[in-house]
Amino acid sequence: MMKLDYWLSDANVPWQAYQSQLSTIHNKLKTKEDDYTGWMDWPLRIEQSLVQDILATADDIRSKCTALVVIGIGGSYLGAKACIELLQSPFYNEYYAGQQNRPRIYFAGHHLSSIYYEELLDRLNSEEVCVCVISKSGTTLEPSIVFDLFRSYMRERYGITEAAKRIYAITDAEKGTLRAEADEQGYKTFVVPDDIGGRYSVLTPVGLLPIAVAGIDIVSMLEGAAQAAKVYDNADLAHNICYQYGALRHYLQERGKVIEIFEVYEGRLRYFTEWLKQLFGESECKDGKGVIPMSLQMSTDLHSMGQFLQDGRQIFFETVLTVSNIRKDVSLENCRMSGKAASMHMLNQIVEESARKAHLENNTPNIRLTVSELSARAFGHMVYFFEKACAVSCYLTGVQPFDQPGVEAYKCNIKAAIK
Amino acid sequence: MMKLDYWLSDANVPWQAYQSQLSTIHNKLKTKEDDYTGWMDWPLRIEQSLVQDILATADDIRSKCTALVVIGIGGSYLGAKACIELLQSPFYNEYYAGQQNRPRIYFAGHHLSSIYYEELLDRLNSEEVCVCVISKSGTTLEPSIVFDLFRSYMRERYGITEAAKRIYAITDAEKGTLRAEADEQGYKTFVVPDDIGGRYSVLTPVGLLPIAVAGIDIVSMLEGAAQAAKVYDNADLAHNICYQYGALRHYLQERGKVIEIFEVYEGRLRYFTEWLKQLFGESECKDGKGVIPMSLQMSTDLHSMGQFLQDGRQIFFETVLTVSNIRKDVSLENCRMSGKAASMHMLNQIVEESARKAHLENNTPNIRLTVSELSARAFGHMVYFFEKACAVSCYLTGVQPFDQPGVEAYKCNIKAAIK
Repeated sequence: MMKLDYWLSDANVPWQAYQSQLSTIHNKLKTKEDDYTGWMDWPLRIEQSLVQDILATADDIRSKCTALVVIGIGGSYLGAKACIELLQSPFYNEYYAGQQNRPRIYFAGHHLSSIYYEELLDRLNSEEVCVCVISKSGTTLEPSIVFDLFRSYMRERYGITEAAKRIYAITDAEKGTLRAEADEQGYKTFVVPDDIGGRYSVLTPVGLLPIAVAGIDIVSMLEGAAQAAKVYDNADLAHNICYQYGALRHYLQERGKVIEIFEVYEGRLRYFTEWLKQLFGESECKDGKGVIPMSLQMSTDLHSMGQFLQDGRQIFFETVLTVSNIRKDVSLENCRMSGKAASMHMLNQIVEESARKAHLENNTPNIRLTVSELSARAFGHMVYFFEKACAVSCYLTGVQPFDQPGVEAYKCNIKAAIK
Repeated sequence: MMKLDYWLSDANVPWQAYQSQLSTIHNKLKTKEDDYTGWMDWPLRIEQSLVQDILATADDIRSKCTALVVIGIGGSYLGAKACIELLQSPFYNEYYAGQQNRPRIYFAGHHLSSIYYEELLDRLNSEEVCVCVISKSGTTLEPSIVFDLFRSYMRERYGITEAAKRIYAITDAEKGTLRAEADEQGYKTFVVPDDIGGRYSVLTPVGLLPIAVAGIDIVSMLEGAAQAAKVYDNADLAHNICYQYGALRHYLQERGKVIEIFEVYEGRLRYFTEWLKQLFGESECKDGKGVIPMSLQMSTDLHSMGQFLQDGRQIFFETVLTVSNIRKDVSLENCRMSGKAASMHMLNQIVEESARKAHLENNTPNIRLTVSELSARAFGHMVYFFEKACAVSCYLTGVQPFDQPGVEAYKCNIKAAIK
């Protein structure tokens, strides 16, 4: 389902040394030595009753509303957003949701732009609304504030009793302000597992519920992830592209390539690269170490950042995420540039190869990860691939993959300033 | 209209030395010593008859269609996109365009995603369509191919004669394949000035026509730019924040801060940072020199890249672009986090200040550029500010601001591969 290729100007990757380190890391992950490693076997152990409950709740939401507001930030936002952007049309809210008789999905609580919320509330007045609020603790600033706004809106519009039937909470099993409120008000709830951190949580109810509401096949998605969990459970580096990718990232970092540029030639992958930026940035960028993740959307950004790629500071490597089979191609009967008939996807591939070739002439290291298709199954597979590759990379770099001590500093300042 | 603040852990910026360099650069720009410096006095010399022609054409487009497809890439795309995203609602296409009786605006030709075009064509079948194609030469790959697609679509749907009345071209005055076609078919055309490069062209017809169709006041926009052209025409560094910003960028680059992270706390500025990335990336990232531009949308990305900002490799500085007056604020009667009534914009400012304070404790250099409001006038002013700051930075870095030799390499490969 995924394929790894790479082009380096030198071919001296010390694979044997990496094999010995990776054997240790493999066992460390497999025995769940560290906390927050519940994602390792999650796709293999998720209970069928939970999946059925999510599917039934998604049906319930679809029957009640024409617009679902999903409130969450960071790991409670990016996974579902990335998946829906990948598998639904960019015209979903404005056109296809209505055609497919599914609710429009509006994300909220991921920023505090007052203009956005003013207009979103205006927009919602012509829709029937449900709200899904996602927060482990209930005290993260942005979603807490935005849920204050939407709780008031829902109660004013529907009354307290009906509002409670239209609010869904994904939160801690027992602790926290959101759990307390949900129990008191009788919101339907799902649990954020204790052993899976936010940026690793898209395959839990955190991601699965909004994704299911958007009409995406979460059963296939979990099957794709389960397949990946088996495929990449292989300590042998020569037969595990997930570990090869982790080793390559580390090798390049050690040689001064401290920026990884995720490049996609299919726009629907744009938010997947945002998800990647959180995954790698929050896991690995610690103690002044780690590869800094950037992303470019091609070929758009060849016409803005192409000059930098070709001729700027060579402190980066490129990781191109590409799709081999596109289910909807567009044929051009008369392509004036080539003087003959052509297909859009073929032309897109020519651009990708032409850019790679130009950058290789400049000795820029290039990694290509090819996924076979854009599907729910492929999304599940990719998520697991990158989650494991990220953990492996962090251990090689010598940082703890599953904490984020650096995000506490400004949060403390907020707490002091807001009172 | 704009204000500059900065926080550096040391205060040894050699302002006097910069003053002497900037005096030379000031004269070099003022006398238009280099090619492609037509943007310098463009807002002061744009002809009223051209502005009137653009406004009349925008009215004509509005009367003919409910959807305008704007085909362009790089400098023929990002400026208009940035302006429309800044001044129109994120719900413009799905909701407000219909409410305001204005055409929806769809960008195209900025990538080759076949899924996108398949769905866009499907979407357009329930709209009345006009097309605006923007390309100086007519031979840039992506817009050329996508215009092939839309030429066929328009002719099939409307017939050759009516299609020609619905196609608008912004191109060279005399040369190139698009000029030849436009003259032959009788498309209404506007001219891309010879002395203004793509990334500096948003205030020419390239940006003005689509922006005017979206209902944005281009007269105010040009006034804002003209005001900036006067304000920043001042060789005295102490009284020119545009030059101060250029000098600070150079100073930080020299001290190993080789990444500039543009951060915005208002989502509507997101595409403005994409425009900034092209402006700076394509102008300055040359000969292995230059500051690498990145962008983050706050506070969203504090929950993904916040760990990196606080605790990752300290090879960057932050440039926060902030807005002092928000015309639509949202008040929260009961903000549970603060235990009292609050306004969303005030809370957003608290987050911004808390993040800055946390990063300053870590000695990360921080620049803040405050714009007074989100308006057409402010957009024009900001565009000119950054255009001039970019030119100045490049001269300080010792690279030519107005060429882009690095974008030719992959284009040559495409030409060889496509035949």
